[in-house]
Amino acid sequence: MTKTASQTPETLAPRWNDQGLIPAIAQDVETGDVLMLAWMNAEALALTLDSGEAVYWSRSRNALWRKGETSGNTQRLVDVRLDCDGDTLLLSVEQRGVGACHTGRRTCFFYQPGSSDWELTEEG
Amino acid sequence: MTKTASQTPETLAPRWNDQGLIPAIAQDVETGDVLMLAWMNAEALALTLDSGEAVYWSRSRNALWRKGETSGNTQRLVDVRLDCDGDTLLLSVEQRGVGACHTGRRTCFFYQPGSSDWELTEEG
Repeated sequence: MTKTASQTPETLAPRWNDQGLIPAIAQDVETGDVLMLAWMNAEALALTLDSGEAVYWSRSRNALWRKGETSGNTQRLVDVRLDCDGDTLLLSVEQRGVGACHTGRRTCFFYQPGSSDWELTEEG
Repeated sequence: MTKTASQTPETLAPRWNDQGLIPAIAQDVETGDVLMLAWMNAEALALTLDSGEAVYWSRSRNALWRKGETSGNTQRLVDVRLDCDGDTLLLSVEQRGVGACHTGRRTCFFYQPGSSDWELTEEG
């Protein structure tokens, strides 16, 4: 079956997974680099939209995670989009501080396929 | 506790979730646009790396999904990175055909926050 643009609904709601979460991709508005992927619950998304600063849900700490609260590496929300089937968010952010990654790097994506495992990239 | 770059392991393996999947973000190598988020199991990742064409795991069909197999909107793999904690992949791809989205759009991210639900963007 071929799907066409006309089948696209005018409005959509986020589809939370069975843990009540949705993946949120953060993209640097200046460089276009994909910085990280984190998760949001409904409260984190509402806080993000209200405050204009990225708030995620930490799955390891099981708590709201105001990005950069301790590190200062906050993310100012510039734009946010929901995807065609409502199960992923894309945040365009102004990344403050040294970067998005807890290791001090600008982006979290710095391992490339190696001979067996994945290896640190040179720029990492 | 402050984490530093020196604590970053030299090698890393993908961390599959309890369904044996990992989220994979596809980014357009030409425009920098984030095109979509899909999921991979180990076989999909191996096929992607071997073939140089994006292969995902369809959670709705419970089957391997060779992106663009029927639509022609294939994705040539240019680069792939694993993130700092091994639970997300970032694919840099050359998007062929009309786009990544099943609606015929270039990218899947075209709903923006509205007064209640999320609304189609004008460019959508």
